[in-house]
Formats: sequence, C-alpha cells, structure tokens
Amino acid sequence: MSWWLQPCRNIDGVFQEKALERQAQLTKPAGALGDLEELAVTLAGLQRTEHPNIDHVWISLFAGDHGVMEENISAYPQAVTRQMLQNFISGGASISVIARQHQAHLQVIDCGTVGEAYDYSGVQQHPIAAGTQNFVKTVAMSEIQCIAAMTIGKNSVDQAVEQHSNLFIAGEMGIGNTCSASALACLLLNEPAEVLTGVGTGIDHAKLQHKKQVIEQAIELHQPDVQADPIKILAAVGGFEIAAMVGAYLRCAQVGIPMLVDGFISSVAALIAVQIQPKVRTWMLFGHQSAEYGHRRILKELHAQPILQLNLRLGEGSGAGVALSVLKMACMLHNEMATFQQAAVTGEKQ
Amino acid sequence: MSWWLQPCRNIDGVFQEKALERQAQLTKPAGALGDLEELAVTLAGLQRTEHPNIDHVWISLFAGDHGVMEENISAYPQAVTRQMLQNFISGGASISVIARQHQAHLQVIDCGTVGEAYDYSGVQQHPIAAGTQNFVKTVAMSEIQCIAAMTIGKNSVDQAVEQHSNLFIAGEMGIGNTCSASALACLLLNEPAEVLTGVGTGIDHAKLQHKKQVIEQAIELHQPDVQADPIKILAAVGGFEIAAMVGAYLRCAQVGIPMLVDGFISSVAALIAVQIQPKVRTWMLFGHQSAEYGHRRILKELHAQPILQLNLRLGEGSGAGVALSVLKMACMLHNEMATFQQAAVTGEKQ
Repeated sequence: MSWWLQPCRNIDGVFQEKALERQAQLTKPAGALGDLEELAVTLAGLQRTEHPNIDHVWISLFAGDHGVMEENISAYPQAVTRQMLQNFISGGASISVIARQHQAHLQVIDCGTVGEAYDYSGVQQHPIAAGTQNFVKTVAMSEIQCIAAMTIGKNSVDQAVEQHSNLFIAGEMGIGNTCSASALACLLLNEPAEVLTGVGTGIDHAKLQHKKQVIEQAIELHQPDVQADPIKILAAVGGFEIAAMVGAYLRCAQVGIPMLVDGFISSVAALIAVQIQPKVRTWMLFGHQSAEYGHRRILKELHAQPILQLNLRLGEGSGAGVALSVLKMACMLHNEMATFQQAAVTGEKQ
Repeated sequence: MSWWLQPCRNIDGVFQEKALERQAQLTKPAGALGDLEELAVTLAGLQRTEHPNIDHVWISLFAGDHGVMEENISAYPQAVTRQMLQNFISGGASISVIARQHQAHLQVIDCGTVGEAYDYSGVQQHPIAAGTQNFVKTVAMSEIQCIAAMTIGKNSVDQAVEQHSNLFIAGEMGIGNTCSASALACLLLNEPAEVLTGVGTGIDHAKLQHKKQVIEQAIELHQPDVQADPIKILAAVGGFEIAAMVGAYLRCAQVGIPMLVDGFISSVAALIAVQIQPKVRTWMLFGHQSAEYGHRRILKELHAQPILQLNLRLGEGSGAGVALSVLKMACMLHNEMATFQQAAVTGEKQ
C-alpha cells in the first residue's frame, strides 16, 4: 500500500477524559477559560499525557518556486524565495524569531527553487526540480514529482518523531504560492477564482484581477483531467512546498503527532490531506485566521476554529508560531492551577 | 485640583514614528504581521522606547464584596472572594500562573470584603468597609468611600512607577461584581439591563432574568440622582475593586504607563475612567473580548480592538494576562527580525 494511504492513528480517549475531569476541578467557574480549556483538553488527548505542553515543537519550513510566476502574479520577484532561505537560517525571519522564543526545532528544506547551485549551511536541499512548471500551460508537476515532494514532508515528520517532538508545524516559503493555493482550493471545492483569491503579499487591484484570470485559465485547463482526485489536483496546480506539507500532515496523523496548522496556504494543504484521508483532521489544531481572502472559506470547510485572528498574512508558519504562545498558556493553566480542594475554595452553589 | 482631574500625559510621537519606519524595513511584505505590527508600534510610542517589551509588567488585583449579593444574583457564595485571595498569593489561581510565566509583579489588595479579621501574608488590606451596601436599596458607597477606593488604585500605580514597571494590568475579584458592572454600564450608556447583563460566573436562565430585574430596579432608584456624572454613578452602583481600577487607569494615563485592559468588568472601569478624562483612552490596549454578554458593546463604545477572542470570562486580569503572550511576540518580532538590508532580501517591486 502506498505510504500516504496507510491508516491514521486513533485518538486515545483516556487522556482527554482525564483532562476534562481536571478542568472541572480547577479554581475557576466551569468553562471560564473558554477556548483555552478546549485547547488543553484536546492537546492532552493528542499528546497522550496528563501534562499537555509545547516543550518539543518541530517546525519544518518547506520552500519551492512556482512556474506560474511567468504570469506576473506577485508583488515580489522570484529571487526572494532563495534569499529568504538564508534569512531563515540566519535567524532574522519572523519564523526564526518565533522558533527561538519557543525553543522549537526549525528545519529549512529547499524542495525545488530557481537559481544557481548554492551552499547555505543549514538549508537541506532536496530539489525536485528548479521550480514547478507554469500551470496555466501544463501541469505544475508530474504525479511522480508530486509523490516525491509529499515524501519530503513525510520524512521530516519521521525525523521529528525520532527527536521526540510532540507538536508539528509546517511552514512554507515560495513567491507566487498564494496563486497556487487559490487554484488548488478552487479545484478542491469546485468554486470560481473570485471566491478564493486574495492579494497574497500585497498586489494592487489590477494585478488581483489578473491573478484571478490566471487562476480561471488554470481551472479551465485542468478540471477535465483532475476530476475530484486530490493528488491529481495537487500535481496539476500545486507547488513542491505545498505537496511536502500535504505529506507531512498525512504522516503526522499516521504516527500520532498533533499539528498546528498555519494560514491560507497551509490550510489548503490541510484540506488536501483531509480529502485524501478524512481522519487526518482529528490531529489538527488551527493557529489563526489569516487576512488572505478565502482563508475563512477553507477553515469553514475544515470545521476549524482558529486560535487567533490578527490579520496576519506572512506564511512561513508564523501565524501558527504566534498561536504557540496562547497554546503554551492554555497548557500552563491546565497543569499549574490549583483545584478547589487544594485551595479550599467553595464550588458553585447547587 | 482633585488628583483624578490632573491632566493626562501626552504621547510622544517620535518613538511611534521610529517604530513605524522600522516595521517598513523588516523582512516581510508590508503589513503582513497585521495587528502585531500595530501593537508593537503603539507600545513603542507609549513606552517611549525603540524596543517595546513586556519585561516589567505590574498586575494589581483588587478585591471587594458586594451588598447586592443579598439579592441572590450569583452562582457562587460570597465567601469565595476571600478564599480566592489566598489562592492568588499561594500561586494556584489563573492570574498567579500567568504572572509567574511573565515574571510580572502580582499585587493583591483587599479593598473591602466580608468576613472576620484575617492575616494572609501577601494580601494588602485597605478595606473601605465590609463590602458595599446593597445598591437596590441605597447607594453602594458614599462619594467619600468611592474616592478612597479610587485612591487605592492610584497608589498602586505610583508604586508600579517606583518599581520601573512599563505595563500595568488591573484585575478584579468580587463575587457579584458582574451585576455591579452591568448596572454601571446601563447608567453610563443609558441602556436597559437587557443590553448589558450576562451570566457572569454562570447562572441559569431564571437567575439571569432575576439579575436583570435587580439591575432595572437599581437604575430606577439611582438614575434621577446620578445624572451623567461618572463618579456619582460609580458610587451609586459600583464596587470598591471597580473604583480602585478606575483610579488606577486614570493614574496610568497621568504618569504615562500603558495599561492592558482585561474583560467586561475592567472595560466598564475603563469606560468610567475615559468618561472622567477622555485622554485616558490613548494609554489603553485591550486584551480580549470576553464571553460575557455586553462586553462587545462596551468595547465598541471605547473604539477598542481586543487582541484575543477566546470566550474567556474569568476576570482576575486573566484575559489581559493571556494577551501578554501575544504582545510579547509582537515585541520580539519588532525587535529581533532582520531588515531587508541586513538580510540582503529584495523588497517589493516598484
């Protein structure tokens, strides 16, 4: 059986039950910590522990370039993908700051970018090709390339498991990849570009209209071939970094590591993983609702309640990274608050 | 001139300008960190620094009991106010866990609770009286008592300044105080109880209807006397701990310390402070939108965009405390991210 079709791990309800019981005993009105209670209880269940925590977070940042950049759909030049790789490992990018703060492991993988051979110590190079092909003209990648990219993500999760990580974040970098993600979402949900296309890194109105036309062209070209097959859709209009995320999400659910999903692009990858295996969804927490137009629609499809709504639209896994701070507090409150009995506080009147 | 009418400090625009300039140079699309950018820039301006931070947070937790508890309007018995005082200093309450995590100074002040003499080391006792009077029958406190309670809050801020604190959080504890806060809000905004009354710590539907009737009675009794005078309103239906918060907020703006406002009760205190001196508002950040019905209306009145929306309804300053985690990340990203020049990353296409 292909690895991505291997079964997902079931959730052990015992720890979730125990966590619920503990929440009911803590010195606060029942439910007064709102979503923080649910986060702690869910994480306790997923991590199979009485002490949910974010002490061993693994962040894999997947990068890839996009052939559709030929169509002039981004506010930034393609060279920025490569330049940012160096910034990630030098510690100056948003996700670098966040990883440092949470003592998370930050792995940076080049899944296929455009440019000369290079050697940035700290960047792992697993290039599938020098960027995808222009999906307005042909498929972004072959199905073999697509599976290879998914396998990069799978391997990252396997490494995370070896290092005893207990929470996984996938981040992405790829100039042009909101265009790819919107095209994916349109084909996955059978919606027009209008509903799922936003400004990405910040294009103006005219360029946004152009981007929508490009996506409409891609839908027209690929829809007859891909039907409703998520892997075919991923190959047709996806990116290497997006495919890597899909593979990582599937593997997380197979080995039983909870994942904290980032923004628009990550959520589209999450949707693909869930379409491949619906049980993947139970292992997912959602970090934030992005400012990128269309993200709300994707979250709704995934029945996801994101932790934060801060109008972030940066990618890199940064929204999930900021949400880690809240998740940490949810864990500490769960683990460290006194019970009514310990504190000799009277409970609710009967 | 009475201390609470002394002028508020003006905001020095220089540091805000510098912070805005820095944000524009960081390696991310312009505006991609959304609300985090605005938080960092605002805090830099208020703290008068190029490196906004939450390294010296002062939390004052004010407690008081409420005469209106005679009317049976809460899910918890009055004794819990006192019991929680001990929990705050023993480290088992929500706000205790949060303060520890952020190495914030946590000061606990009894402004007037019901019960025998006691000695909990760590609780500062400044009782105005053994709880307020029942505001359905008479004023909760005299104007002299009200000013005395406000002065407790003022003194806390003066102590915070002496200790070089650069962010102030006021928390509250007082069984029955959502009833007081709702009555205050109704008189401040000239709205009926229906619009501003919620379940507090979690009463059932019948008790909620009763609570609304109690508040309507209080409005009828006091409206002719208080007119639109915020201090008269505070004395008529407020609480000692709420008055202390009002005093603290006014003082923060006078000495120039930014404050992070917590939930429903705190926001009602904030509204009173702003009605006394509108310029107080510029020194306020808002931690979260509470699950307590009516909070949204108060936030709207204050033109406030809270950082979090997590359905918290615990009080104690805990929502502001959880928001500290996000504020911290906003500061770190602002201070530690590389600029385009430092990282040799190409900016947006012209």
